[in-house]
Amino acid sequence: MNKEIIQSWFKELQDSICQAVQNTDGKAKFEEDLWTRPEGGGGRTRIIRDGNVIEKGGVNFSAVEGPTPQKILDALKLDQSDFFATGVSIVLHPNSPMVPIIHMNVRYFEMSNGVSWFGGGIDLTPHYVNDEDAKFFHNGLKEVCDKHDESYYPEFKKWADDYFYIKHRKETRGVGGIFFDRLMATDEISMEDRWGFVKDIGSLFAPTYTHLMNKNKDLPFSDNEKLWQYLRRGRYVEFNLVLDKGTKFGLDTDGRTESILMSLPPQANWEYNFEVQPNSEEERTLALLTKGVDWV
Amino acid sequence: MNKEIIQSWFKELQDSICQAVQNTDGKAKFEEDLWTRPEGGGGRTRIIRDGNVIEKGGVNFSAVEGPTPQKILDALKLDQSDFFATGVSIVLHPNSPMVPIIHMNVRYFEMSNGVSWFGGGIDLTPHYVNDEDAKFFHNGLKEVCDKHDESYYPEFKKWADDYFYIKHRKETRGVGGIFFDRLMATDEISMEDRWGFVKDIGSLFAPTYTHLMNKNKDLPFSDNEKLWQYLRRGRYVEFNLVLDKGTKFGLDTDGRTESILMSLPPQANWEYNFEVQPNSEEERTLALLTKGVDWV
Repeated sequence: MNKEIIQSWFKELQDSICQAVQNTDGKAKFEEDLWTRPEGGGGRTRIIRDGNVIEKGGVNFSAVEGPTPQKILDALKLDQSDFFATGVSIVLHPNSPMVPIIHMNVRYFEMSNGVSWFGGGIDLTPHYVNDEDAKFFHNGLKEVCDKHDESYYPEFKKWADDYFYIKHRKETRGVGGIFFDRLMATDEISMEDRWGFVKDIGSLFAPTYTHLMNKNKDLPFSDNEKLWQYLRRGRYVEFNLVLDKGTKFGLDTDGRTESILMSLPPQANWEYNFEVQPNSEEERTLALLTKGVDWV
Repeated sequence: MNKEIIQSWFKELQDSICQAVQNTDGKAKFEEDLWTRPEGGGGRTRIIRDGNVIEKGGVNFSAVEGPTPQKILDALKLDQSDFFATGVSIVLHPNSPMVPIIHMNVRYFEMSNGVSWFGGGIDLTPHYVNDEDAKFFHNGLKEVCDKHDESYYPEFKKWADDYFYIKHRKETRGVGGIFFDRLMATDEISMEDRWGFVKDIGSLFAPTYTHLMNKNKDLPFSDNEKLWQYLRRGRYVEFNLVLDKGTKFGLDTDGRTESILMSLPPQANWEYNFEVQPNSEEERTLALLTKGVDWV
């Protein structure tokens, strides 16, 4: 694979997603921070805040390179070598509890020994699960997956269920999506095919999320629903800080903290032993935050 | 050591601390949840919320036993054996940004192979560092430490500086305190001596924190100071979820999640790249959140 081509495409993806989210939001503009990494490479962090629809979020691009950090070498059981990694990472926290939180990451990783792979994922975290939205989201993912390989959706959907699982809460983070990592060339699937898949997933983000923004942004909500949103954001914080491998890896390897932790919500709350009311929408949502729900 | 005596004393410590905090708060009462652990033992979780001074916090006792979880055996490089662990854990988040957050943990651990030790720590996290309070806090700790061993305060103070350090922020959590672990019998110091030290630290908690509550609870504060408190609480969340070994261990070993995460604040905020004003109180506080400050 040509890493220049991949990295340029990811930059354009960042541009087009920022443009689409900004247009749909109608108020906030992304602010950009350029940063460089002492060991090589850098990134374009783009933050949106205080919008009509989005309260806080980031659409970040980075392309970093240099000697492979010891922690990765240990994890991959590799000898010293150089690496190159590029990708786009997105988390958007909406103002309204009726609009879901979304996350996407698409990335390419290459080692100087010639090994390279794609990874990524996209998952939706509604504060209140809306079946229509969950089906729309998963159907869109399945369609793109099926275009490339019929095994992708079932495999990557299960991977997301397992990855976005908050073990200490016995809850999934939201309604899941897809997750994949270390996608390399095989006898059947070339790296070009993998790249085509990653590009199609990346391109699906803007139409998917702007649809969900538009559809839900004007729904009314109560103070209780707002509190529930803050508590669900608390769970999001727990997942990202306790379990998310990308966050842990970034913090462990002296990544740019403000870019990594752009994923945290503007405000999160915790209540001891909060219990949902019987037969409430909150109870219904909790019952759906489980692995293995078939949304398509 | 007689584990029944230790556990009874810790229960009484929990009682007396709850009483003192409740009296000083003047409004909120601790609510108690008793829980049992399937593998053996259990605890008394006591939560306070919506008080005059304390917004949310817990003063928890537990005494658990059974087969040692594999994660501890691996960490300690031990063969299978049974363990017993008892202790008191406290975190209190005040309403006012002018009152510091406090944390204390005192614990005893015993393995069926006969090895046993004490551990613990106490640290103060002011939203705004007040020199008088920090000196009062550290002088109190030094006095108790010195009564037992002159090496304790310098050694355990440094241990706290290192332990309560948020590496990815390059900040200490607060003004530190003391931290110690695996205190066993040596030629010079018996387990009875260690126990006497742990009891004296435990007993220091109530007079120390009620003094800081009374002294600061009626100070006025602005909306900006309140926002700063929420941002500092965000750092507290980051420390507890990313770095705190007790939290990680509890979540990893299927501890009672609601008791472990009582340490999280009622509300925390994150702002991308928040910058303090030059020559502000916030800037002064940040400059003091560093290792090696001599408060005595």
